[in-house]
Amino acid sequence: MKYENTAVLLMSCDDKDGIVADVTALLARLGANIVYLDQHTDRDNKKFFMRVEWDLENFSIALNDFKTIFTYESAKKFNMSWELYESANRQKMAIFVSKYAHCFFDIISRWKIKEFEVDIPLIISNHEDLQKEAQRFDIPYFYIPISKENYEEQTQKQMELLQKYEIDFIVLARYMQIISPKMISIYKNRIINIHHSFLPGFPGAKPYHQAFERGVKIIGATGHYVTQELDAGPIIEQDIQRVNHKYSVDDLIAAGRDIERRVLARAVGAHIQRKILTDKNRTVVFS
Amino acid sequence: MKYENTAVLLMSCDDKDGIVADVTALLARLGANIVYLDQHTDRDNKKFFMRVEWDLENFSIALNDFKTIFTYESAKKFNMSWELYESANRQKMAIFVSKYAHCFFDIISRWKIKEFEVDIPLIISNHEDLQKEAQRFDIPYFYIPISKENYEEQTQKQMELLQKYEIDFIVLARYMQIISPKMISIYKNRIINIHHSFLPGFPGAKPYHQAFERGVKIIGATGHYVTQELDAGPIIEQDIQRVNHKYSVDDLIAAGRDIERRVLARAVGAHIQRKILTDKNRTVVFS
Amino acid sequence: MKYENTAVLLMSCDDKDGIVADVTALLARLGANIVYLDQHTDRDNKKFFMRVEWDLENFSIALNDFKTIFTYESAKKFNMSWELYESANRQKMAIFVSKYAHCFFDIISRWKIKEFEVDIPLIISNHEDLQKEAQRFDIPYFYIPISKENYEEQTQKQMELLQKYEIDFIVLARYMQIISPKMISIYKNRIINIHHSFLPGFPGAKPYHQAFERGVKIIGATGHYVTQELDAGPIIEQDIQRVNHKYSVDDLIAAGRDIERRVLARAVGAHIQRKILTDKNRTVVFS
Amino acid sequence: MKYENTAVLLMSCDDKDGIVADVTALLARLGANIVYLDQHTDRDNKKFFMRVEWDLENFSIALNDFKTIFTYESAKKFNMSWELYESANRQKMAIFVSKYAHCFFDIISRWKIKEFEVDIPLIISNHEDLQKEAQRFDIPYFYIPISKENYEEQTQKQMELLQKYEIDFIVLARYMQIISPKMISIYKNRIINIHHSFLPGFPGAKPYHQAFERGVKIIGATGHYVTQELDAGPIIEQDIQRVNHKYSVDDLIAAGRDIERRVLARAVGAHIQRKILTDKNRTVVFS
Repeated sequence: MKYENTAVLLMSCDDKDGIVADVTALLARLGANIVYLDQHTDRDNKKFFMRVEWDLENFSIALNDFKTIFTYESAKKFNMSWELYESANRQKMAIFVSKYAHCFFDIISRWKIKEFEVDIPLIISNHEDLQKEAQRFDIPYFYIPISKENYEEQTQKQMELLQKYEIDFIVLARYMQIISPKMISIYKNRIINIHHSFLPGFPGAKPYHQAFERGVKIIGATGHYVTQELDAGPIIEQDIQRVNHKYSVDDLIAAGRDIERRVLARAVGAHIQRKILTDKNRTVVFS
Repeated sequence: MKYENTAVLLMSCDDKDGIVADVTALLARLGANIVYLDQHTDRDNKKFFMRVEWDLENFSIALNDFKTIFTYESAKKFNMSWELYESANRQKMAIFVSKYAHCFFDIISRWKIKEFEVDIPLIISNHEDLQKEAQRFDIPYFYIPISKENYEEQTQKQMELLQKYEIDFIVLARYMQIISPKMISIYKNRIINIHHSFLPGFPGAKPYHQAFERGVKIIGATGHYVTQELDAGPIIEQDIQRVNHKYSVDDLIAAGRDIERRVLARAVGAHIQRKILTDKNRTVVFS
Repeated sequence: MKYENTAVLLMSCDDKDGIVADVTALLARLGANIVYLDQHTDRDNKKFFMRVEWDLENFSIALNDFKTIFTYESAKKFNMSWELYESANRQKMAIFVSKYAHCFFDIISRWKIKEFEVDIPLIISNHEDLQKEAQRFDIPYFYIPISKENYEEQTQKQMELLQKYEIDFIVLARYMQIISPKMISIYKNRIINIHHSFLPGFPGAKPYHQAFERGVKIIGATGHYVTQELDAGPIIEQDIQRVNHKYSVDDLIAAGRDIERRVLARAVGAHIQRKILTDKNRTVVFS
Repeated sequence: MKYENTAVLLMSCDDKDGIVADVTALLARLGANIVYLDQHTDRDNKKFFMRVEWDLENFSIALNDFKTIFTYESAKKFNMSWELYESANRQKMAIFVSKYAHCFFDIISRWKIKEFEVDIPLIISNHEDLQKEAQRFDIPYFYIPISKENYEEQTQKQMELLQKYEIDFIVLARYMQIISPKMISIYKNRIINIHHSFLPGFPGAKPYHQAFERGVKIIGATGHYVTQELDAGPIIEQDIQRVNHKYSVDDLIAAGRDIERRVLARAVGAHIQRKILTDKNRTVVFS
């Protein structure tokens, strides 16, 4: 459920007794009306994760003051990593595309119907193909072709645009170019990619061809945060579809489009709603 | 995850601020190592539900004393309905069958491999068909044929057996007879039935024939608690399978067996692990 | 798989021995390179259904001549109902919408990426809400508000537009008005509706509210041909999504949008590719 | 659908025009009442596959004579590989197990309810654990422990048992030992294994631990024919289940049991009904 005017607190730390009691008691003392609480304990690795969301309407203090209090009352005690967000602060999302339009259209349509409550200040592409489609929706489209020769210079251009437009996070909607290490480092856990296979099966190029050759009976797609290692970042969401011997490679590609669309959409949706915590190479995605 | 020696506390009440803080603080004061905590707030109906499970090994007080303390510290304050269980107390499960063996075999095999940690003191049937199969597993089998004429007398016999064997809950593994109102009333939310359709579609008799006639493209099964109204009790679990025009009624029945097996197994598993709370005609099934 | 320049023959008749041999032998004699053949025998009702598609490039005779030959060689012999289509003939699809945009955007984007190879000469709506969105894609949008008072007159206007633009089939993309009996009769098995529940569960209005009240664990959507009886026409496609107690009515509606999108898209895709035969109130949907 | 007294003809050859017409015409001339016909053309590799099943009750000639006629009329003409089976001939199935009982129980229960119409002359195991369970069902159980030292000798014993009991095909129901190359060669495409991951992801040992480490959101299982290369044989069936961060390794293992059960059951069922053709490392599994 989406709430209008709330604060979201994401925490993680080593597991100890009493964390939930501590945090919820603090919020109760400050008059927070909690609208969402979920926590997870990874018993194998003794790690604790929590997401709390509360209504700001009757909250007794300013969020900046809350940060101070929370730091001293709870965060230091449990040696927490934590982030605090206001749902009212719309995030700025950049979309990177190449030639395929299906994920692009899907994201745009979710934005138009306000399923994704973000701003989309720009689209960046290494091809001109989708320029006209971007124009239909009045979104600035920057064509930045990339080759081995101009890679440094062009990825630098990308970085400048992201900075200029104050981009919060990036969606790679079937963008077929390697993201620069610098961008990955600056946008850690803030670049979402859709890989067109059920990872770790068929990483790399042409996964549907690989799936056809291997004769699998189910194909899939994977939404993940981008890390330096290709197709190996923390998985946010996956989904699949049953196929059979009748599917040619083209049929797999067509069926795959639908999986890619919905997997990417769910991953982006979870990110927008601050539902995701990462731990090493794994994610906690609160429901 | 299943734990060896834990207490499970299930609570529900009208939603108010501070319930989680209150309960977790009490448990923290008493030295409980919480291994599971999940809660749910139904905002439309302003109801709160919670399940907490903690390790009893280092718990500072006896469970009976905890009950007293919890009653005065939390339950009365929030006007809670609550139940407390010890995971070490094995429940006694009765199985009712008729002629179909697939759900019976599935439950028995999950019990044999200790997925279901319960005792099965008896099987009750209105047919003799599965007597030999019950004997293979050394489970007493009571053949209680039921007709319109002997209904009162025979359901009374059933009740006596359930009492004699101190049965905690009942699984209707494709048992094709109406359960007596008295038994339903005594075993409220403790009789689990598997209905062989995706309710509310196709209630009543011959759902696969109905599904064939209607030409549906997906069939399903529903595990639910039994109430006086036929096939209308609180739904615990549902699952489905895709079918197509090639499926004859017999094919639907065969495909349905697999759905029935796993839906019933999941519903029974959730019940055994005290994961289910009911509210009016709906369930909260904690994961 | 989609083919460039093919003929599609759809047949149904009472089941008899030798139909496949008869039809395939005729096509072989005429030099047809068959690229698709699937058939289905409904043994319960003794009905036969078949879909054959062949390459027209090296086909020895004109399709009109084939019709004559097929009529005398096969169709009369087996008393067949049959239809013949050329894949090169693009169909004209009308879209009816009301206020919800998600199915509209999904269909348009599939059309833009050439997944749906049809023409869309017009959009008809009883609301003005999506006019601007239609304009983005340069599709004529006819706003025809409908009330009890003007129903006859306005549905007559709809019919005139359909005739004027020579519409082959109609997609109701969450169009929230009763289609006129006359239109249903003229466009028999050519009006595709998406109902936002897993039929036959929750027909009629507000199915997600009904689903919430009943506490189902899975929700669905149904794509079907429109008949006079509401939500009771031949089912083309269904799909579902697992939900749980955490889903409010709004969450169900949001999750449902994704199911509606893909179910309607698959139903429309099957219709465009001439994959559907109807028999009484059931469909044969070839894969 | 299963038929009582039928013949099943499985064919594959290079794709040419007129194969369906040729075979169906021959069967029509001989008075065959075809109850099942499905064919598949792999256009990329130009290969043709077909499965035809017909009622033997009124078939005009003996099956042996049919073989002769078919060889000369059709098989030679198209250079076919083909197999002919009588559904009335019950196959003899050996089950190999180690310590896990869930797949074992599942297969046995499907055999008891006549979903699998085969004989099970023996069970072979490298452990004693399931001996008592086999006895419950009166199936001979051969305990053949295997170590590096006795591998040759013990796999030879296995081969002798298979020969003595005239085993047609083998089901590895979570059998945790390498099958001998000789057995693989003799029982080519007749040894069915269940691998507890969604291949090609996580081959080899401890796939659930690998899945946990990688943080996948879906786990799966794969039923495949055994070849010399480990976990790389032709895939018959796969299925999956959605998981999330709450799943410990033990939870993945428990959830996986259900997937393994149904995937293995479907693979075995397809094999029993002669629905599978293999081509290089891929399968055609007719529905």
